[in-house]
Amino acid sequence: MAPEGSPSSLQAIRYTRGSLQLLDQRLLPFQTAYLDVPDVKAAWTQIRDMVVRGAPAIGCTGALAMAVELQTHKGAGTEFSSVKEATDYINSTLDYLVTSRPTAVNLADAANKLKAAAALAAAADAATPSSVCSAVMDAAEAYFVEDIASNKAMGATGAAALLAAAHARGRGVGGKLRVLTHCNTGSLATAGYGTALGVIRALHEQGTLEHAFCTETRPYNQGARLTAFELAHDQLPATLICDSAAAALMASGQVDAVVVGADRVVANGDTANKIGTKSLSISAAHFNIPFFIAAPTTTLDPHLPSGDHIVIEQRTHEEVTHFRGIRVAAEGVNVWNPSFDVAPCGLIEGIITERGMIPKTKDGVFQVSSRERGKGGGREDGLLNSLWDENTEREYGTRVG
Amino acid sequence: MAPEGSPSSLQAIRYTRGSLQLLDQRLLPFQTAYLDVPDVKAAWTQIRDMVVRGAPAIGCTGALAMAVELQTHKGAGTEFSSVKEATDYINSTLDYLVTSRPTAVNLADAANKLKAAAALAAAADAATPSSVCSAVMDAAEAYFVEDIASNKAMGATGAAALLAAAHARGRGVGGKLRVLTHCNTGSLATAGYGTALGVIRALHEQGTLEHAFCTETRPYNQGARLTAFELAHDQLPATLICDSAAAALMASGQVDAVVVGADRVVANGDTANKIGTKSLSISAAHFNIPFFIAAPTTTLDPHLPSGDHIVIEQRTHEEVTHFRGIRVAAEGVNVWNPSFDVAPCGLIEGIITERGMIPKTKDGVFQVSSRERGKGGGREDGLLNSLWDENTEREYGTRVG
Repeated sequence: MAPEGSPSSLQAIRYTRGSLQLLDQRLLPFQTAYLDVPDVKAAWTQIRDMVVRGAPAIGCTGALAMAVELQTHKGAGTEFSSVKEATDYINSTLDYLVTSRPTAVNLADAANKLKAAAALAAAADAATPSSVCSAVMDAAEAYFVEDIASNKAMGATGAAALLAAAHARGRGVGGKLRVLTHCNTGSLATAGYGTALGVIRALHEQGTLEHAFCTETRPYNQGARLTAFELAHDQLPATLICDSAAAALMASGQVDAVVVGADRVVANGDTANKIGTKSLSISAAHFNIPFFIAAPTTTLDPHLPSGDHIVIEQRTHEEVTHFRGIRVAAEGVNVWNPSFDVAPCGLIEGIITERGMIPKTKDGVFQVSSRERGKGGGREDGLLNSLWDENTEREYGTRVG
Repeated sequence: MAPEGSPSSLQAIRYTRGSLQLLDQRLLPFQTAYLDVPDVKAAWTQIRDMVVRGAPAIGCTGALAMAVELQTHKGAGTEFSSVKEATDYINSTLDYLVTSRPTAVNLADAANKLKAAAALAAAADAATPSSVCSAVMDAAEAYFVEDIASNKAMGATGAAALLAAAHARGRGVGGKLRVLTHCNTGSLATAGYGTALGVIRALHEQGTLEHAFCTETRPYNQGARLTAFELAHDQLPATLICDSAAAALMASGQVDAVVVGADRVVANGDTANKIGTKSLSISAAHFNIPFFIAAPTTTLDPHLPSGDHIVIEQRTHEEVTHFRGIRVAAEGVNVWNPSFDVAPCGLIEGIITERGMIPKTKDGVFQVSSRERGKGGGREDGLLNSLWDENTEREYGTRVG
């Protein structure tokens, strides 16, 4: 089973039954090298060592490593003498995998889903070790496919929304859009395709992307390092700018729409995302450019009424003052380095999810409700949480709020 | 003669009659070391080698090096046998100094002023080689003193303007201001004190500065490297932020006013300045924070009607993709790296010059006229051009327009 639906895009994970490879993201953007993942022990080490980043990708890696282990080392189940032996092995192996990144909610989520599949298969009348293992392998592969499918759904919805909004303002070049994004929300941060970058990919696949612009995304440079890499790799027409140049780019008439990801979308639609998002939303409004959020429903948090209630965490000074351990900034100066900021709902044209657009009232307030969150498709939670991912946790510490 | 008026601030130039030292700016922000300038030959090399940066500082260095040469090596004129010999020597030596940085208008301006002083003294009835040399040394020292005095005048005007505008909006902490600035416009870019940073210094000297914030100023990091250094050196309460964090800082209520420099101010007040200025002006307007320009009258260009007529030069990709020769960004991506952008006049609260505020009509358009430019004080042109300086030329190539 090859990852479907994104033939041209960068693959953080390569999988066929019995074979798993990971793009070594530690070498990006300077080297593109894949490492074999022959068994769960290798997966455990590679997850811990950040070969793979992004919670969805980590969740998929854990699930697919379990499948590879069963297919390759357990004869697809034929090496177990009983259903119980198979089930016990699967459960303990999944528990072991989760310890590689204990804070990665998607990894635990994937493990739980595979355990549930094993339990369900084991409870069947005609259960055999092979039928249990087969069910687990199917569930792992479904987990992988569904993540990309979900991002693709978000991409299709978003592409249509961006085109409609830009065209309504008379923007675009021959019907094509020039789209600005921020940070990394692509194949490297998800199991594939991406969220905000998935919207840009969808435009490109439809032939309606004129150009993609990505910001550097200081201070951690996810845009310069990762988004620029993905765009160049996939041969999308793309240009990198400094964060501070976004307003000038908009003023020059080169931006038809902006789409960014989300760390958290609260009840009224106020959206926390990587630092710099607020500035982009303000500048976009100033130039009458539609500004969109691409937010998996797992990032929706209707329990907070507005962005004022989101606690903004401060990151270390060294992210700003140093580059790869070399001091850049003068000594003795204080640093203010917030992890993210909030785009106010009033400046957001639309919030794109894998289930469609979030409803919006006429006065510009979004209606984010828990019924939007993670229902249907057998994926109740966690998996689509692509922007609040392990990478986010590593970069930004504990979850907000 | 010590540089007066800025006892606590960083000195790019240290001078007393017969002695000149330059802060070696190539070592900043990591080392603070002064180099002796014993004669014009040393000055020529040090100017060429970027020991000193900023056109006003370069102009002053050339003038003061001429004075040191005359005082130390020509016996204050007693070693010349005739007025003509003295005058010829002064003229040819100044011509030689100008060749160290032929594009530095301020250096040529300083040389012309010293030549004029020599010619005037030589034309006097009782002219002697010593009277000619004395006049040249006096002119050189006046050039230095006046530059700082001009910046201090801008600082005093600006401090009052920022306080009035912020207080009118109910901003400030116990009457003190928290001020955000961009790029480097301080003692290192001028002969001393600074323009926009001079306004912040003036607030500090008055006891009305609560806090200074400076941006990194990507891609060349003048804020992180130089402004942060100056602020820390002079012990002003200061914090460094990423350019992209400015809007979040404003939203958090920590900014009472913004003041930045100018590369060029055109007839309606539209102001070209370092990339990122436009974004700051838009965000400041969004949060109702007064946004000021500190512009020496030599940067006024009433011949261009509006900012649309300013040609924005593109800089090299490597400034964005590399750090000290090390690649940061992914390969294969295009880069858009404009040298500066334009803050529109409608978002500017006031334009501060050394001669006072630029007049503004009720509809928010400034009335920049040539009569504002470089008259009085015996300084017709060039010297105060602190933000369109040699450093700017080196960093940004040829002059705009």
